[in-house]
Parts: sequence; C-alpha cells; structure tokens
Amino acid sequence: MAYPCVSFLTDYGTADGYPAACHGVIARLVPSVRVIDVTHEVPPHDVRRGAAVLAQVVPYLPPAVHLAVVDPGVGTARRGVAVVTERGVLVGPDNGLLGPAADALGGATAAHELTDPRYRLPHVSSTFHGRDVFAPAAAHLAAGLDPAALGPPVPTADLVRLPMPIARLLPVPPGEPAAAEAEVVSVDRFGNVALAAGRDLLAAAGLVPGTTVELGTAAGAHRLPYGSAFGSVAEGAPLLLVDSGGAAAVAVNRGSAASTLSLTVGDVVRLRRAPE
Amino acid sequence: MAYPCVSFLTDYGTADGYPAACHGVIARLVPSVRVIDVTHEVPPHDVRRGAAVLAQVVPYLPPAVHLAVVDPGVGTARRGVAVVTERGVLVGPDNGLLGPAADALGGATAAHELTDPRYRLPHVSSTFHGRDVFAPAAAHLAAGLDPAALGPPVPTADLVRLPMPIARLLPVPPGEPAAAEAEVVSVDRFGNVALAAGRDLLAAAGLVPGTTVELGTAAGAHRLPYGSAFGSVAEGAPLLLVDSGGAAAVAVNRGSAASTLSLTVGDVVRLRRAPE
Amino acid sequence: MAYPCVSFLTDYGTADGYPAACHGVIARLVPSVRVIDVTHEVPPHDVRRGAAVLAQVVPYLPPAVHLAVVDPGVGTARRGVAVVTERGVLVGPDNGLLGPAADALGGATAAHELTDPRYRLPHVSSTFHGRDVFAPAAAHLAAGLDPAALGPPVPTADLVRLPMPIARLLPVPPGEPAAAEAEVVSVDRFGNVALAAGRDLLAAAGLVPGTTVELGTAAGAHRLPYGSAFGSVAEGAPLLLVDSGGAAAVAVNRGSAASTLSLTVGDVVRLRRAPE
Repeated sequence: MAYPCVSFLTDYGTADGYPAACHGVIARLVPSVRVIDVTHEVPPHDVRRGAAVLAQVVPYLPPAVHLAVVDPGVGTARRGVAVVTERGVLVGPDNGLLGPAADALGGATAAHELTDPRYRLPHVSSTFHGRDVFAPAAAHLAAGLDPAALGPPVPTADLVRLPMPIARLLPVPPGEPAAAEAEVVSVDRFGNVALAAGRDLLAAAGLVPGTTVELGTAAGAHRLPYGSAFGSVAEGAPLLLVDSGGAAAVAVNRGSAASTLSLTVGDVVRLRRAPE
Repeated sequence: MAYPCVSFLTDYGTADGYPAACHGVIARLVPSVRVIDVTHEVPPHDVRRGAAVLAQVVPYLPPAVHLAVVDPGVGTARRGVAVVTERGVLVGPDNGLLGPAADALGGATAAHELTDPRYRLPHVSSTFHGRDVFAPAAAHLAAGLDPAALGPPVPTADLVRLPMPIARLLPVPPGEPAAAEAEVVSVDRFGNVALAAGRDLLAAAGLVPGTTVELGTAAGAHRLPYGSAFGSVAEGAPLLLVDSGGAAAVAVNRGSAASTLSLTVGDVVRLRRAPE
Repeated sequence: MAYPCVSFLTDYGTADGYPAACHGVIARLVPSVRVIDVTHEVPPHDVRRGAAVLAQVVPYLPPAVHLAVVDPGVGTARRGVAVVTERGVLVGPDNGLLGPAADALGGATAAHELTDPRYRLPHVSSTFHGRDVFAPAAAHLAAGLDPAALGPPVPTADLVRLPMPIARLLPVPPGEPAAAEAEVVSVDRFGNVALAAGRDLLAAAGLVPGTTVELGTAAGAHRLPYGSAFGSVAEGAPLLLVDSGGAAAVAVNRGSAASTLSLTVGDVVRLRRAPE
C-alpha cells in the first residue's frame, strides 16, 4: 500500500538544516510525495513531549507514513522500527516515541525492525539516523514497500512504552467529596497547561462544565470555573476546560496559565469540586 | 472558482503541532493544493502584527485562499468570515486581522459568515477553530466552493477594522519647516523599524532621498540621512529609507535600529528636515 | 535543463513573512516546482554559517536550483550570481555564501551575473533582493532557463571565497607526538561542536577511533575518547567523533559540548594523542 503523504517530527530544530537533509532524502526516493512537517521544535531529547505532540496531530493527517525522530540513543543498540496501524505506518526509534500516536491511529497491528540495508543510505553515520535510516525507510514505505521487507517482525507487546503520566481518583474519607490528581503533560506556546486527565476523570471527581473547581498546586489552592471557551471568563482570569485534544487543561483568558499559576510539565495537581 | 494555493498565517508557533493539524485537515480535503506558510510566529494574540505581515506578503502570492488565524476571541461570539476580493479569498476571525490584506488585494467585494456545519469538522472544539472551522472552510474554497455557500452575507462595511496607526503632518508655526509624526508599526528580525508613514508623507514633510532627517524619539533627536540601501551609510550608522513594503523605515547598516535607537512597536517618532 | 526542486536558505527568520513572499514569487512563476526550505534561521548576516549549512545539506537534495540569501550587502555594488555545477545551480549574492555548496556539488563549472531585467520583478527594491532578484532567477532556472541568459559570465576564479578556517598540523619538536589545531566552525542545536578538521587530519595527528584525545582549549586541557556514537560514553561525558557531515566534532552524550567545554564558533582547539 502506497501513501501520498509523509508526516515528519523531530527535535532537530530547523537552524542546522537537519530536517532539510531528510526532506531531500525523501524527495529523491519519492519525488511526488507530500511532506507535512509536524514540528521540529521538540525540546532536544524530550521523547515524551515528541510523543504527545505526534499523538495529537496524527488523527488530523491524511493516510500517511509518520516519520518521527527524537533519538537520544542514536548509534547505540536501541532499534529502529516501523509500526503498522490500520490508518498509517509510524517510523522511528523504538524508545516510546511512537506508542501514543499508534494508539491514536487505532493501535499497532505489527512492527518490524529496520535492518535491511537496501532501505538505508549506502553510508550510515552513527549520529544521524534520521537522514540515513529513518527517512529512507519512510520514503520506501510511502512508495508502497511492504513493511515486512524492512526487517524481522517485532512483537507489538515488546515495543518500548513510556511510563503513563499520573491521572487517578484519590482515596478520600467517607463523606468527603471526590478528588483526583493529574500530572501536567504539556505547556503550549500560549501557556495553556494540559493535564493527563480527560473529561471522564473530571466527571468521576464530580466536575462537570459549570461547576467551580478547586485546583491544588504546590503554591496553594485556586478556585476557577469549569468553562468552555477562553473568553468565558474575564481577561486574565483562569479556568478549567477540555481542550481541543480532549485533555483537561488549565488556561487563562488572553494570558498564560503556566505563569499565572506557576505550573510546569511533571507537576501534579489536585482537582475537586470547590466548597460552596 | 478553485484556487491552486492556500496561504497560512497564525500565532500558533510550530512547537505544539497546531499548524500541522490544520495542514492535515486541508490535505485530507484537497490533496493536491499547495500550502504556503506565511508565518506561524506572530506573537500570541497580536492581531495587529498578524495583519501587517499578511498584508505585506499577499501581493506576492499566487491566486489563493489566505487562511489567517490570530484569534484571542476563539469560542466567543466573534464571527468567522470569508472575505472575497478580486484576487483571492481571505478566511479567519472577524477581528481586524484580514482587513489590511483585503485592501492589498484590491479591497473586499463581499464577505460571508462561516456558519454552515457542512464546511466544518464534525466536532468543533471551543479552543481550536483554526483546525475545526477555518482550515476546512479554506480547503473547501480552494476546491471551488462558492463563498456564499459558507453562510449569510456580511456587509463589508460591517467587518471589524483595526484602528489606524498614527501617521500625519504636524501643525507648525508659519515659517517653521514641515514635520510629521508616525507610529512604529513593526520591528523585523534584523531590527529594522517600519513606520506607518510612506513616501508621500515623507515628501509632504520635505523629506526626499538625499536630505538629512531629524528623527525625534523619546530618547532624543538623531540626525540621519534619507538613503536607499543599507550599505549607503557606514557600518553601524543609521539611515531612513523606504523599505521593500513601501514603508518609511529606520535601519542601521549591519546592525539593529531598534536597539541602537531604542525604538519599539507603538512608539511615535517625529520626522523633519534637519537644520543645516 | 529544468529542475523539479528549488532549495531555499536565508537569514530572514520566518516571523516577518520574508521567506513566504519569495515562495510566492516562485509559485507564481513555476506553480509545479517543489520548494524545500533548508533553513531560514541562519543568524542575521552570518554568511559563513549560511555557507556551512548549505554545503552540508545540498548533497542530500535532489537535482535542484539552490536559492540562498544571506546578504548584508544588499543594494550595494556586490553582484548577484548563478553558479552552475554538474549537479545543480546555486543562486544568491556573490559574497562567499555559495562556494562551499558548489564544492560539495562537484565544483563550479560556470557562473553568470544576474543582470537581465526580464528575470527580475518589475520593481526591484534596494533592501529585498531575495524576493525581487534572486527568487525570480531561481524560478526561471527551475523552469529550464539557460543560466547564460541571466547575464554576463563571471570567471569562476573571480567568485568571492570565504577565508578558510584554521585546520593544520602543528610543528612539534622531534620526538614529540604529532598535534593539530582546528577552528570551531559550528555549534548545533544540541551543543555539538564541529571542527574544521576531518578524519584525515585527525589521523595525521595520530588520532584514530579508540584512542584517547587531549583536547586543548582556552580553558584548559581535557581528555576524551575518540568514539563513534554519542552513547559510547556515559551520560554527560565528552567524546570526539566524526559527525554525519564528515567533520571532527566534540560532543557530550545527552548534553551540550559547547556548554560543558565552553567552546564557541571561531575558537581554535589543539588536538593530540593523550599521554598514557
């Protein structure tokens, strides 16, 4: 099966020309394929952030080969893989980067290690497998190569998975209101703070749109409405909402929730219905 | 009328993958269209800066649908619009972002609110209309959809306009030389400072190429030549010139005028012919 | 000869829309050509860095017209040129930017000054030749224009060349081990430090993979292994390796060699085999 599109995510930045070399490798092998850059601004070596961004974007892309490279272990024994799903193939290092996106595409149905030298550049460096190994594999797949040709199968259960972020109901004494805790999984350009929780966990903690939330952070407790649009609160005011990726998120209307509430990735917040 | 090209400007940055999700939405609806990214580095919520960059670029683009999203009011009652001109259609929030570009394309001849759900994604979030509302509308227009199909007409006179920046001749006592004042409308990557004034206002203030200008800023008065190329003055020296967008601009040869002269967007400078 | 691809490198950044205007100029003249952005994040006016990035990337691109603009002398007497090689044509200012890439493509076989007004925009500004002169020339070349049509020939020996960075064997007293010195030519996003030296100079200094290197910097002497992959040393430890562009490079596993060893572009380091 051929794909008309390759998506492309890395932590390379664009200043050094590294993504462009990969674009070139793809264009030489499959001149007609469209490449959509997901981002190249993943913080260096931040596999988790790369995985989260990729998983958010892939459901909106056409059927594609998704090339993703955040690869602090390049040149070591970590393997490169192609992960097959019903709705596209993912290519990159087997370090957890591809898992959430595979889930977002319906789950991995097969995987293959990238070992066949016919689908690499003739000379493979030890520091730039994006260009020498992963981009050629993605291009060949886009051109219709059977993923099984790339190398031996890898049981999908053996693929490396990232640890799950914290998201759970907290035990509370009888008679006390329900409460949840959730890890901050990302802060975007606008300072919006996405939590590992979704609508369901919020509901289990008694939080539905229109209620007032007590948000507990290291710095103290904040009361904020569970709203919908940023503009449902005054400028500079915080709110809880479900964001465009389906995650519970803390935001500030025309401001930065991360700054206002001193939140950063990896923090764990507590959520419960605010006392009247 | 179909368009072979979609241009795309936002304040999303590229790190979070937001522009890529929109690229995906477009590519799914119109696989063959070419998308030209104008920029995604508009400062967050800076409608005015977005409008200025878009207006500078559109005259150089092919006939296109111009998708532009700087949208602090996303999810509130502000409407989304398609603005038709003789040389392309603009799509985005009706908050002033599209007006200068419409002018640069010959002026708005019609506008329509984006209300028909057939031209949105099936689920519309309250925080990401770029992906859910504006990108699908732009894609359908590129594929040849009549803008009138998107929703009810909006009188072009009712479209939101940004306040005009300051640019005017100053009253001077009889016998005194003419003088103008102009607002700083942008500072580019090189530190070049673009003013709201054009060649005509300069001329009305007695300033023509070859004259010496007195530039009055909050920090004091500077003498600088009205030159043409950056290299018409010594390295590190300032000059006034008309830039590639037709705006009066203060520049420093191989340096930053914004730093050297302590100028920033929104400042108002005075310009007159320097006394001999 | 027509080219299906135009590559594009500048120091414009993307925030101001300058590369997009050039994309538009190209798309109007040659709607079907693919444009690969090499980077637009060359530090402002840094001709040397632009030249290095371009030379690293072009070998991996398809046959193309390579449009490159880092042009502090825009609007002065410096000429614009098209430089022909066996494997593509380079277009940009004649200030040394194109030379290393021409070498990487097999060497310049001819060059022409960009003087014919038919291959420029009708109005040429004095500050934005990327849009008004270079992009149109690149587009016409991609469409099959003979480079000789652009203007008079320039002897390739007359093209401006950048000074060579320092890379040489040091004189040592008889009986002392060989030693080399090399200039730092780039620091990438990860903090990897590329030197002007290649594998051959290292070997001439007695350094081969597996040996221990003494690296002399302004801050002192460091011992580090000559390894291959980043992961061949412990996290946070430095190593010398030959990078994906063939350059000797100092790196730190999952860290920044530039920070750890206080190295920056233009520094000169000494390299010799470490005493046992």
